[in-house]
Amino acid sequence: MTNALHLVAPVDTLAMDFTRDFAAPAAALFRAHADPDLVRQWLGPHGVEMAIGHWDFRTGGGYRYQHSDDGGTYAFNGVFHTVRENELIIQTFEFEGAPDMVNIEFLWFTDLGDGHSRLRGRSICPNTEARDALLSSGMEGGMTDGYERLDALLPSL
Amino acid sequence: MTNALHLVAPVDTLAMDFTRDFAAPAAALFRAHADPDLVRQWLGPHGVEMAIGHWDFRTGGGYRYQHSDDGGTYAFNGVFHTVRENELIIQTFEFEGAPDMVNIEFLWFTDLGDGHSRLRGRSICPNTEARDALLSSGMEGGMTDGYERLDALLPSL
Repeated sequence: MTNALHLVAPVDTLAMDFTRDFAAPAAALFRAHADPDLVRQWLGPHGVEMAIGHWDFRTGGGYRYQHSDDGGTYAFNGVFHTVRENELIIQTFEFEGAPDMVNIEFLWFTDLGDGHSRLRGRSICPNTEARDALLSSGMEGGMTDGYERLDALLPSL
Repeated sequence: MTNALHLVAPVDTLAMDFTRDFAAPAAALFRAHADPDLVRQWLGPHGVEMAIGHWDFRTGGGYRYQHSDDGGTYAFNGVFHTVRENELIIQTFEFEGAPDMVNIEFLWFTDLGDGHSRLRGRSICPNTEARDALLSSGMEGGMTDGYERLDALLPSL
């Protein structure tokens, strides 16, 4: 197990793949993605405030939230295609600063036993320009920060 | 203008792109995608019966339908990320025979004036295996059939 974020984005695909291990069972990791009172404690870079305006975490539901920091406010929204407890989330993802550039995201949760779990993710961009913009936006640093915050939150669950 | 289906699926991407022109204004073409009583008259290959079990055509809504022919019944479902009248539909798409292989689909509607319009589509598969399976499933023939049926329906709208 490694708790480093491992992100791969080969140039010949629209997909970005990542894996991240956590010192918590898959059920706790999933709950931290499901419960908006938990999500807003870790999702996003260090130092942002997260306000969740809409959160309907179920197959066919959707979400909208805002991140705020000294630089401004950034809104995101999407719909949940699949929510399968402790196993899988399939959702769309749109940064409203780049309207209609909608990703589809897959998050697979695997229990590794012994109080550990693995999160595997695939995010697919609508075109290569959108992908390059995301990769150069500090996305990887934001994810790294967010999962560090999640590491700190998980022991309390 | 050509009303032939033009489908491109380069081997180095997860995306399939298509364009198709219609002898109808964009508003009529959009309505044929919006109204379930119209959708079931054209979506799918010649000879299938379409039953729509769920149809909530709005941003944040979703759908589920079944196609039936002599060979069996095939179910599909998805959620609508964006519905923008006469302009854009962004939705997910899952063939339930290949569970969790969820595409994201973009449909752009453009009025060409003079009673004609263009539909441009992009469907992005979660991985290359899913894409190859779709391409070898007769998808292109089914789309060609469906748009011929839509040609026949549009004059009545």
